[in-house]
Order: sequence, then C-alpha cells, then structure tokens
Amino acid sequence: MIKVGIIGAGRIGRVHSESITKYVKGAEIKAISDVRVTEELKEWAKGMGIPNVYEDYKLILQDAEIDAVLVCSSTNTHAPISIEAARAGKHIFCEKPIDADVDRIQQVLAEVEKAGVKFQVGFNRRFDHNFKAIKNAVVNGDIGEPHVIRVTSRDPDAPPIEYVKVSGGMLFDMTIHDFDMVRYLSGSEVTEVYAAGGVLVDPKIGEAGDIDTAVITLKLANGAIAVIDNSRKAVYGYDQRAEVFGSKGAIQTANDTPSTAILSNVNGVIAEKPKYFFLERYMQSFADEMACFVDSVVNDKPTLVNGTDGLQPVLIAIAAKKSLDEGRPVKMSEIS
Amino acid sequence: MIKVGIIGAGRIGRVHSESITKYVKGAEIKAISDVRVTEELKEWAKGMGIPNVYEDYKLILQDAEIDAVLVCSSTNTHAPISIEAARAGKHIFCEKPIDADVDRIQQVLAEVEKAGVKFQVGFNRRFDHNFKAIKNAVVNGDIGEPHVIRVTSRDPDAPPIEYVKVSGGMLFDMTIHDFDMVRYLSGSEVTEVYAAGGVLVDPKIGEAGDIDTAVITLKLANGAIAVIDNSRKAVYGYDQRAEVFGSKGAIQTANDTPSTAILSNVNGVIAEKPKYFFLERYMQSFADEMACFVDSVVNDKPTLVNGTDGLQPVLIAIAAKKSLDEGRPVKMSEIS
Amino acid sequence: MIKVGIIGAGRIGRVHSESITKYVKGAEIKAISDVRVTEELKEWAKGMGIPNVYEDYKLILQDAEIDAVLVCSSTNTHAPISIEAARAGKHIFCEKPIDADVDRIQQVLAEVEKAGVKFQVGFNRRFDHNFKAIKNAVVNGDIGEPHVIRVTSRDPDAPPIEYVKVSGGMLFDMTIHDFDMVRYLSGSEVTEVYAAGGVLVDPKIGEAGDIDTAVITLKLANGAIAVIDNSRKAVYGYDQRAEVFGSKGAIQTANDTPSTAILSNVNGVIAEKPKYFFLERYMQSFADEMACFVDSVVNDKPTLVNGTDGLQPVLIAIAAKKSLDEGRPVKMSEIS
Amino acid sequence: MIKVGIIGAGRIGRVHSESITKYVKGAEIKAISDVRVTEELKEWAKGMGIPNVYEDYKLILQDAEIDAVLVCSSTNTHAPISIEAARAGKHIFCEKPIDADVDRIQQVLAEVEKAGVKFQVGFNRRFDHNFKAIKNAVVNGDIGEPHVIRVTSRDPDAPPIEYVKVSGGMLFDMTIHDFDMVRYLSGSEVTEVYAAGGVLVDPKIGEAGDIDTAVITLKLANGAIAVIDNSRKAVYGYDQRAEVFGSKGAIQTANDTPSTAILSNVNGVIAEKPKYFFLERYMQSFADEMACFVDSVVNDKPTLVNGTDGLQPVLIAIAAKKSLDEGRPVKMSEIS
Repeated sequence: MIKVGIIGAGRIGRVHSESITKYVKGAEIKAISDVRVTEELKEWAKGMGIPNVYEDYKLILQDAEIDAVLVCSSTNTHAPISIEAARAGKHIFCEKPIDADVDRIQQVLAEVEKAGVKFQVGFNRRFDHNFKAIKNAVVNGDIGEPHVIRVTSRDPDAPPIEYVKVSGGMLFDMTIHDFDMVRYLSGSEVTEVYAAGGVLVDPKIGEAGDIDTAVITLKLANGAIAVIDNSRKAVYGYDQRAEVFGSKGAIQTANDTPSTAILSNVNGVIAEKPKYFFLERYMQSFADEMACFVDSVVNDKPTLVNGTDGLQPVLIAIAAKKSLDEGRPVKMSEIS
Repeated sequence: MIKVGIIGAGRIGRVHSESITKYVKGAEIKAISDVRVTEELKEWAKGMGIPNVYEDYKLILQDAEIDAVLVCSSTNTHAPISIEAARAGKHIFCEKPIDADVDRIQQVLAEVEKAGVKFQVGFNRRFDHNFKAIKNAVVNGDIGEPHVIRVTSRDPDAPPIEYVKVSGGMLFDMTIHDFDMVRYLSGSEVTEVYAAGGVLVDPKIGEAGDIDTAVITLKLANGAIAVIDNSRKAVYGYDQRAEVFGSKGAIQTANDTPSTAILSNVNGVIAEKPKYFFLERYMQSFADEMACFVDSVVNDKPTLVNGTDGLQPVLIAIAAKKSLDEGRPVKMSEIS
Repeated sequence: MIKVGIIGAGRIGRVHSESITKYVKGAEIKAISDVRVTEELKEWAKGMGIPNVYEDYKLILQDAEIDAVLVCSSTNTHAPISIEAARAGKHIFCEKPIDADVDRIQQVLAEVEKAGVKFQVGFNRRFDHNFKAIKNAVVNGDIGEPHVIRVTSRDPDAPPIEYVKVSGGMLFDMTIHDFDMVRYLSGSEVTEVYAAGGVLVDPKIGEAGDIDTAVITLKLANGAIAVIDNSRKAVYGYDQRAEVFGSKGAIQTANDTPSTAILSNVNGVIAEKPKYFFLERYMQSFADEMACFVDSVVNDKPTLVNGTDGLQPVLIAIAAKKSLDEGRPVKMSEIS
Repeated sequence: MIKVGIIGAGRIGRVHSESITKYVKGAEIKAISDVRVTEELKEWAKGMGIPNVYEDYKLILQDAEIDAVLVCSSTNTHAPISIEAARAGKHIFCEKPIDADVDRIQQVLAEVEKAGVKFQVGFNRRFDHNFKAIKNAVVNGDIGEPHVIRVTSRDPDAPPIEYVKVSGGMLFDMTIHDFDMVRYLSGSEVTEVYAAGGVLVDPKIGEAGDIDTAVITLKLANGAIAVIDNSRKAVYGYDQRAEVFGSKGAIQTANDTPSTAILSNVNGVIAEKPKYFFLERYMQSFADEMACFVDSVVNDKPTLVNGTDGLQPVLIAIAAKKSLDEGRPVKMSEIS
C-alpha cells in the first residue's frame, strides 16, 4: 500500500483522486494541495477520506510517508514541481503536457533519471479500451506490418475564446493527444510532419491566431504513414476513432455510446450519438492509467507512458506548427 | 437453350420475364398468355422480345417447342394449369401457393411425378443472398446443431381491406413464406405449431376476420424450436430478418438498405431504413430462382424448391390457423 | 446519509457492498453478516471500511442506527429475513426471487406494507443502460403502442449439474429475469403463457429434470405479444438483447462488448464477442439499482422494483412451468 | 430510342454493352468494334443481339444511324478517337482517363464543344449508391458546410508488375478515381495537393518506379480539407469508403458486402468481407452511368461527368506526382 499526494485539486486532480479511491488497490491518498483551499475543497476531501489538505504543495513533497505525487497543477508549474518532486525522491505522475518548452522538458527528464524515480505522463487515451484493443492487435501481429494509421479526433464543441487564447493552440492543446496516439498505435517514431489547417468552425478562433480544423500527415520511421483529422466542433458529439491498416488486415474502432439501442422509425434507423463529454468517454482510461502508475511504483515496473512519451508529442506539435506556418512538410530532425 | 412459356402476365409474371431476359442464360421466352390481352401487354411483350402473346394459355401448352412453363396466373388456377402442363410434358415453375386445398396440391404433385417433369415452387426467399448465407452456414456446420430459429417478417404496410378479405388470411398469405423459411433454414420438418395472434395494426383487419400481428412457435423434428414474429405494418419499412442459433454459434441477418450511408447529426447516428418494396428487396432472389429453375431443366437436376416444399408450408399454415382458432398447440399429425 | 446492513456476504452481497462504497452517495455500510465468518471475510470487510462483521444477522436488525438492510443470504431465507426486517422497521432490498412459494411472497409483501418500509427486489437488469434505453423509448412513445416484445437471453455456459438440480429449474432461475423484462419493457401484465422447451445443450440437464432451451410466448393485457428465447449455452458469450416493436417503430439493443474494435482480415470483418460474465456485463446496473434503492429510502420515494414486481415473475414462471408440463398455453388466472 | 456504337470490346466495353442491353431503356447497340475480331467476340456479340462487329471503328463513326459512341479502346486512343467522333457529330461516352496529357485533353474538350455533342467521362463511382448518398446529403445541406472529406480507397490486390510498369503510376491509375470523388463529394475545386507515398506492399512496385501506399492531402477552394488514403493491397478485400464532415454533421459509408449475415462463434462476431472484385462492387454504378449518359443524349441534358470532370483529376494527379517527387505541397496553379 503506497501513499499518494495530489498537487492541484482542479477537475483532473479530483478525477484521479476518485480513481485511486474507488478503483485502485494498493494506494491511498494522504494529502492534496491546491493554491486555493476553499471550504468546498475541504468538504470534498473529507468525503473522499483524504486526511490532509494543504495550500502549499511543498508539505506534500516534505512528507516522508508519501511515495508518489500526482502533478495536476496548472500547466506552467508541471515542470518545476516535477523537478522538485524528483529531487524529493517522489515517484511522479505528471499531467500532460510536461511543458511547452522542450528544454524544460529535457530538464525534467534528466532530474527524473538522476533521482531514479518513476515518471508517468498523463496520456490517458493509451489506456482506453478501444485504443488498447487496436494496440493489442498491432502488437499481436493481427494486422501485420502497419502501413496506414488514421486518427479522427473531433471535440463536441469549441472551447471559449478566452481559453483558445491561452491554450497554446489546437495542435498543442488537442492534437497532442493524437500525436501520442499515432506513436502508441504504430510503435514507431514520427520523422516528418505536414499540417494543413483552417478556420472553419468559428472565425473568432482565427482572430485569436489559432485554427479549428486540421488534417495532419505524419511519416513514420517504420515507413508507415499516419493521418490525423481534427475539428474543434462535431455537432453529434465527441468523435474519437482510429484505424491501423497493415499487411495482414486492418483494425478500427467506433465511438462509445451511452447504450446500444437502435430506434427504427419513419425517419431512419437511429443509433445514439457518441458519448459527449470527455470525462464520461474516458473515465475508464483515467482509472486504468492510475492503476497502472500505482502498479509501476509498487512493483517497480517501467511506466507505460514515460518521459520520452511526454517529450515526443511536444516535439511533433512544434513541427506541426512550423509546417502550418511555413506551408511545407517539416522533418523532425529540424526540431531540436 | 430452352424455350419458356409464361402463363399470366401480371406483376410476378413480368418480373420473371425480365429475370429470364436479362439474367438467365440458357432460356428464352417464346410466349406469354393472359386472360386479358391489352395493347399495353402487347407493347410490353414486344419490348421484351417475346414473340407470342396469347389469351389462351392452352396455346402455350400445345406448343411442342416450349420446354417449360411458369404458372403465374391467379392462385385458384395454379393447380389445374399445373396439372394440364404436367400432362403436356412441360416442366413447371409454379407460383406459391400451389393451392389452398391440400388434396388439390397432392393431385398436382402426383401428376408431376407421373409426368416426370421438373416442378419448382416460387418460394423466392430461399434464393435471397441473406437467407442463403444463413442456410450455407447451417449446412456447413458453422453454427453446429440448430437449437433456436427466429424469423422476423414484417410488411411495410397492410394491404387494402379488399385484399385482406380474399387473401386467405395473413397466415396463408404472408406467414407462408416464413413457414418455408423455417423449413429451409433448419433443414427439418415442423411437428407442432402454436400461434398467438392479434389485431393491433388496424381494427378493420379484425372485422374482416383476419389478424395483423402474430408470434408463432414451431417445434421441429430435430428438436429445435422456431419462432416467427409477423406484423402487417412496420412503419420503418420491410423488415426481413432471421437468426439460427445452435451448439457452435449463431448466424443472423440484418435488413438490406439502399446504401450503407450513416448520417451523424444532432439527432443521432442515422442509417437508412430497410428497402421498402418487396420487388426492390427481393429482386436478386427472383432472378436467381429463375436461373436455378432453368438450370434444373437444362441440366436435369432436382429443383431446389420441390413439390414437398410447396405442400408443407400450406399444411403448417392450416395447423397455425387451427392453433389460433382453438387457442392451443396443434400437432402436424392432426393435419392430414 | 443512511446506514446500511448487509445480510449475506456471498458474491452478490459483496457486489452490492462495492457499489455502495464506490458509487452510491448517501449511504454507508455499518455491518455485514454471514453464516460463516472467515478470516478472509473479515479482511475483505476491513478493506471495504465496513466496521462490523457478524455471524448473526439479528445483530443487524437490532441495531437502531441501521436504516436499511440488503437481504443477500441464501434464497430460502429471503422471505423469513425480510419479514423480520420489516417488523424491525428496516427498509429492505431483497435479492430475487423473494421466494419460490407464492404464499410466502404474499406474506412478505403484507408485512412490508404493514411496516410501511421501502421494499425493492433485485431485478437489476431494469437498471441496465441498454434495457433502460428501450424502456425510455417506450415510455416516451417513440415506438407508439407496443405490438411485439422480443427478449433473447442466453447464458454463456450451463451451470454445473449440481446447481441445476437445486436451481428450481431454468424458468425460475434464469427466465425469471426475462419475465420481469417483458413486464418492464411492455408496461403491461402477462395474461397467458405458452412455453416450448427442450434439452439441446446437455442431456444431463434433462436427466436432472430440467430444460436448457426454451421459446416462451406471453400474451399481455394491452394486446401485445411477447416472446422470450433462452439457452443455457451460447458459445460466443452472454447474449442479452431485446426489441420492442410498435405502431410507430421499433427499438432494439445489441450486446455490450469489451471494445468497439473491428478487425478486418482474410477471415472476415470481426467484432468482439459480447461480454462473457454477468458481473462484467451488468456491473453498471448493480451500481444503479443500489443508488436507486438508497435514493428511495433517503428521499422517501417509491422503489422502482416493488413487491408486485417481485411477485409477478414468480407467478409467470409457475404458469410457464405448467405450460411446459401440460403442453398447452396457461392463463395467468389459472395461477392463484 | 438511340443507336449506340461501342469502340473497344475489352472488359469495360462488354460491361457497358451488358448495361445498355439489360438495364437501359432508350438505347440499343448497333455495332461494336475491336482491333481484334475473334470468333469468341462474334459469338458474344450475337448473344447480346449486337448486329454488327467491326475491326475498324471508323465504320461506326461513318454510320449515320449511330447517335452515340462509347470509347472503350486502349487509353492512348481515347483522345484521337474522341476527336474523330466529335467531328463525326457523335455523342461521346469516353472511358477515363481521357488522356495522360493535358494538352490532348484540352484538344478533345475543344472539339467536343465545337461539335456541340454530349461528352461524358467514365468516372462511374459518382453513380454508386453509397457515394451518391453522401453527395445527396451534402447537396441537401444535411451536414452543413463541408470541413473535412475523407476517402479510403484500397484495392484487394496489387496488379501484376507488368501492368504497374505501363499504368502511369498509382496516382494516375487508381487515385484518379479518388481525386474525382473529392471533387464530387465536396462540390469544390482542389487548390493544393500534398502527397506522402511509400512502397510497403511489394518492393517490386518500388523497383518499377511506383508507390503502392499513399496519403494525399488536398486543400479545396471552399476552405475544406480532403484526405485520401490508398493501398494497392487490402487483404480483406476492396475497401471503398468515404466520409464528409461538416458544420452540421457527418456522413460516411461502409463497404458493400455479399450479404448482411453475421456469424457469432467462439472466434468473434464475424461479418462478411467487402465485395472483392470491382465489377461486383460497382456493377450498379456502371449500369447507372450508362442510363444517365443515354438520358443526357435522348433528353438533351448536360452530362453528369463532363469534360472538366475528366480534365481536373488528371491535373490533380500531375500535382500529386510533383508533390511526391519534390516532397512539398504543390499548388494547382503550378500545373498548367
């Protein structure tokens, strides 16, 4: 039984708290910290059986009983807190992205390596039952050598413009999950990126300097070609599909729906829309990534989403942004 | 190349004419007859390249060049014309049902046997690509021993009350195809029938002495149990599905649709309705039954829907009607 | 926040314990009892945070702090314990069936009514996301008036013969859920039952006096006709589907699968088998039935599966058994 | 009733002959020509009821009774014969591609315009029931403004290397249909092309200077982005799918299969593979394109696949090839 501290009590911090409390054997939460400790937070923590609520995350890092921390604070603090945590000898689960800056990510990875602690990055979709089924088929050789990887990733609705402005851009905020998915499903590294993007959903997004629609082609080291298509707004819900096509076949997934019910009437044969909200859609993956992290710590196994897995999607996003800006394919070797 | 005469130029007679002309190698139509030879019919026959149009079907039977006849006239004439045709040495394709009267059917079968001519009954659904796929799976042993057979057969709309009154009743008019389907898919004979029926679609159908909704249970000689569910009106279209469940698995079919397109919008994920009209839905089966009949004649093979196959569904329908009337299961041995 | 006592710490008692602990707000488990208190049970209870483990369930009934009990003990004790619990003023969640004997069920219902306590029976499938989607469509009028209800319920494998011998028979042990489902989906009462059954899966089941395959037709008070098909063994997994067909359309559900992945290779286009194990398939429904029960107690609402809902399926099963034995449809009015 | 001459009696010439004979009202075939008139061809023509078989196609062009010709000869003769046919005042159905050379295509179009004859190019897939359903949805506004168009087009097996060598390359031979499809489904013109390609199916294809796998991104004038993925070999069959995603929803198609049968067994839930052979898959579209061409001639309507539709995909293929060779996106304005 390990003891966990959670740094950041926002939405994702609470999601992980619930996962650990409800589904993960072998871990208990000893403390949670947040820059704003409200009555509501205290109440919530009490309900969850979390004994300590701090304003200062350093109290977590200083607690010798705590084995591992979850870094769920605001993105710009992921790197410095991770570094501190590594130096304090804590195993680290760090929400994605580690940082927008490559040097800072490298620094985190170096500290993690030096400290010899576990480090897992929050690319939860790798633990999703559907994508995992694809991955398993690829690893088992069911589809032979991968030739083409397709990822469709469309949000149910665009975020507020205020968020768009500080999000780092769609490629870093949203597509980054898909870059990770391509690496995960293909088992290969990206060598070149070409991004075609546009503003088709909302002109305000364009005015904020971002895109809302994209088709991104990725050449992979194993010769396969991947393509991601993104939209900030699919009116029918959260569209999350993938396909790997290879020498012996293809495997693809459909969206999860609230039920399998199909209504036949004068208007057609009508199935339900995909699950709309990412927490509903991906809850199982959040729980499983926690279980996996705890398992890595308890049983001294390598984490399934390691530092490189945290770094690479950021590098790919940088290449994709460069491609978009310069209207040409960009080699990964151009990105340091 | 055999020569064919068609007796009865109504809808089904013309469907078969088109099938032979367009799809069936090895046969040509020499003559067609109808009790009413209109200008329109002559025009149509000319367009089809049919050289002779008669009012008197006997001219077809007397034509020594004609090898085979299709009996597509009104139901009450199927038996007498088939008998005449057999005596004239013509191979016979007879539309279903051969007759509503079992003795008359027996008489036809006796004459056919005496004459040694081919005899095929128009249970076209046996040639449908979907039901054939089930049949093949059963015959290949893909589902092991059949345990449960389910047939769903729902018309897109109830026929006019005038038709209902002369139709012989839903069990004889509509379910008879499903009785044949159960025999076909199971490869076994029915031993007992229990019919539960009701008037749920249109009270006028009840007033006409018929039912419009039914669930019919059939015990089979091989121990399997079949169940048919019928409705005269499925607002979403012509619903024609079946499933055979057995010791090694199950095989089921879905409806055919005009296209595979699926529209995702705010209302749901919407596929097309089943093909609505029986000629659209079953055109391929009509063509294939003709090809099969011609093949039987040309290559002296047994027909795939023989006299027994024409008789049995009538016997089952009689048992089902008796069951409905008496509110109890009826053994086939009760029906002579 | 209500306090709950659980009587019976077998598989289902533990499932409900987990549901309450993990998913149900507003309830905590104060005690659990079992006729055999092992070290393992104590350990498990400790892990679940259940403070008291008793051998004698009466300690639970005597605890004034406990508001509600879950009766999860062996079937033959459901009725007497429920009666005692009602007399002790406890709200009751009782596993199905209440009893095999109708008089004893009636006695339980009378005591519950006298005590004015909540009473919910464990027909968990009513809370399943798929069946609930059908129910909602029916209630919303999406399919108009129900005409035909179809329930397919096939277990992945037959139980051990020892279990078969004491199970009360397939109709009482397995089909009883489907009888409940027909009532739930149709919103109507059964008036007549016809059961066709056979021994097709395993002759030993027949030797034990039971059937393993059945097709059961049910006439309903609203005129609709329902049909259930059962098998003790579907090699492809737990097959749990239903369809309601009505005047304005039809709604049907498919099986849940571990993922939506579809593999296309030289052998075909292959989806995953249905979830195999009932706990995996129905876990969401177990959690929701607990939440619903607690909600009824806390907010003084009627339970969603009440005493009548516990009684009726037993009556239908008795009628079905009589139908099977006598080879004829049996009216519910014949069953007292 | 118009009279048609067919130039070229190879596979596609015969397919069109069958379509006209069987399905198209309003046209009859007066003559067919081929550079090699064999006994087999004469026999076949007789069976089809085609009265004249010529070695010299000029006999067709000189026949004043012939209203329209189908140019089904070898690709390098499409342009010169079309020009001759236009000058002879014949309406023209020309197999795709008109020519590999843009100037020659322009010349054909100029002659066609001068002659005022109908001209239709053989992009049959526009007439396919599935793709037409997408097109209709787009035109009807069902998906709003198109944002992303996806076309998946994979052949069941690579052609012989000898064919690869003379095919003009995958982009001209296979993807050209997909370029047409993007224009058809989007209703917009391509402005820029980026092609990523590889040799993953068979190294011999690479040795022959061609690719066998590609992902091609196309920017469209209306702002939408299209992506095509191609493979020369999908072991599970002919994979032909498309999706248009837009502001109000998405519409996608699946593959056609021989039947809707689904087998559930210990290995999974197994549907049939897509139809394997292009003639089987696209027969309905071949028939409908002929009916449409004849309708254009008879009723003096514009053809649905006109000269521009013949030219543009060639220009796009040229751009795609240039993109592939130069490793950069190529603007259509770069292609004269």
